[in-house]
Amino acid sequence: MSLVVVGSVAYDGVETPHGKAERILGGACTYISLAASYFTHVKIVGVVGEDFAQEDVGLLASRNIDVSGLERAPGKTFFWQGVYSADMNDRTTLRTDLNVFADFQPKLPEAFKEQPFLMLGNIQPDLQRDVRRQMRAPELVGGDTMNYWIQDFRPQLLAAIREWDFLLINDGEARMLSGETNLKKAARAILALGPRYVVIKRGEYGALLFTPEEHFVAPAYLLDQVFDPTGAGDCFAGGFIGWLAGLGKPRAGVTSADLRRAVIYGSVMGSFCCENFGVDRFRTLTRAEIDARFNEFQGFTRF
Amino acid sequence: MSLVVVGSVAYDGVETPHGKAERILGGACTYISLAASYFTHVKIVGVVGEDFAQEDVGLLASRNIDVSGLERAPGKTFFWQGVYSADMNDRTTLRTDLNVFADFQPKLPEAFKEQPFLMLGNIQPDLQRDVRRQMRAPELVGGDTMNYWIQDFRPQLLAAIREWDFLLINDGEARMLSGETNLKKAARAILALGPRYVVIKRGEYGALLFTPEEHFVAPAYLLDQVFDPTGAGDCFAGGFIGWLAGLGKPRAGVTSADLRRAVIYGSVMGSFCCENFGVDRFRTLTRAEIDARFNEFQGFTRF
Repeated sequence: MSLVVVGSVAYDGVETPHGKAERILGGACTYISLAASYFTHVKIVGVVGEDFAQEDVGLLASRNIDVSGLERAPGKTFFWQGVYSADMNDRTTLRTDLNVFADFQPKLPEAFKEQPFLMLGNIQPDLQRDVRRQMRAPELVGGDTMNYWIQDFRPQLLAAIREWDFLLINDGEARMLSGETNLKKAARAILALGPRYVVIKRGEYGALLFTPEEHFVAPAYLLDQVFDPTGAGDCFAGGFIGWLAGLGKPRAGVTSADLRRAVIYGSVMGSFCCENFGVDRFRTLTRAEIDARFNEFQGFTRF
Repeated sequence: MSLVVVGSVAYDGVETPHGKAERILGGACTYISLAASYFTHVKIVGVVGEDFAQEDVGLLASRNIDVSGLERAPGKTFFWQGVYSADMNDRTTLRTDLNVFADFQPKLPEAFKEQPFLMLGNIQPDLQRDVRRQMRAPELVGGDTMNYWIQDFRPQLLAAIREWDFLLINDGEARMLSGETNLKKAARAILALGPRYVVIKRGEYGALLFTPEEHFVAPAYLLDQVFDPTGAGDCFAGGFIGWLAGLGKPRAGVTSADLRRAVIYGSVMGSFCCENFGVDRFRTLTRAEIDARFNEFQGFTRF
């Protein structure tokens, strides 16, 4: 049983107050799958260009990620370049070259369609919907989105998320999608659109989980230094669905306690992501370190 | 055994997206003492003008607050007027008339000097220091401050907080005081200035408690509607020290568990404050409602 992850695989140029990287492995699919790989087996669907380095495929393979759905197309890999503000709460995009990603039409290999878990990274909502329909009978389907799709592809987005079990979204996007400033009201409005859970990410302030029955408030981990926040939201997503997938339960068996722990594992993975440039932290991270940080979360939240 | 609270007693003109009040009871001392009064006996030290209404004294007295240290001076009561932004995360001060507060020289009645607990609201640091020295041998002393004192009265502020057990401060002020952007580093730097604990308030995102040994992360309560956030930080302070004062322990007996619960009671009181204009929520609030909300905090943070 595997988790299927669909999304961008990219090269990023990143500058933070702590340093600069000209061209490093990135993309939502990359971060989600690396984070999830500590909890469950992952199969990815994405597209890269002829310039995609074998050592980057090697990093994914080293985490036992199935890359048979990673298409290699003529042209260059998606490239994004951005620079962070001094406090790293804002970032400015300097360049976006979609390259081969512009014509991305995700096609699931046969063996992928039978899998029970699906995470749809932030791509055009019609593509997300198409992937969802390629799956036979998934137990748990979740997705991410962004301001651009909310504003300019609203009907397509609403059609997509209606078929999801959960939506991961940040606070600003939740307000934009729902038209509600208050996050409790925003969450209620989003749940009415179809998803059974909504997780609202608040960056350095943590995350909120809402179900029709209850909500859960999770803090973020306080790091001594945020080296590079790129990919932290995707690593949250990977930790969240990866941990749920690792439980291997059917949809109806997932409890409130499971979901709460999934949010904490998401926060744990997001925190590790920020400790080094790009995906570098995942070159050395161990499951023991992850579980130790989960225990730290219990320590600094208990009262 | 009582808690002594020193600070401003004021009239406020407040406009939020939910309504407008021309002239309502406010001031740090008022909010702190009302919030603390649910947990311990409170004695206040402040100054008001000839215009201060008997019904406002009556509200304090109805909470069993000792107002014998509330001086009445010739002139008008401190008046502040402000307007909140649409999302209520920003506010603009329209008017500040210090009036009788300009010459405030806190003088503690004899019976106040023997008390074990002291909370210094945000006033000029030399006055805070003077009040601290009027107390004989308090068990627990804490204070609040603001950007103005941090920037323009730094030596005086450092001299004051060196003698405190805890400092309550918001995140922006913590960064300004310490010169550190990272909140963990900021807290460490502040602890090195003297206080044994520091509580960093993050508004709608909750609060952080730091001691030399550990830290604790508390979320804020998610309200369906924030009616008026004026005074929420002071109510946090009142709940925090009020609950600790209610325990009646000597300084050395206060445990990590006590401090964590104090932070949650602070958050609880801050949340109630926002539910109505000015101090109105305290006209009806009961201890049973407070304890029920404390239990809600346990419910939505446990995992």
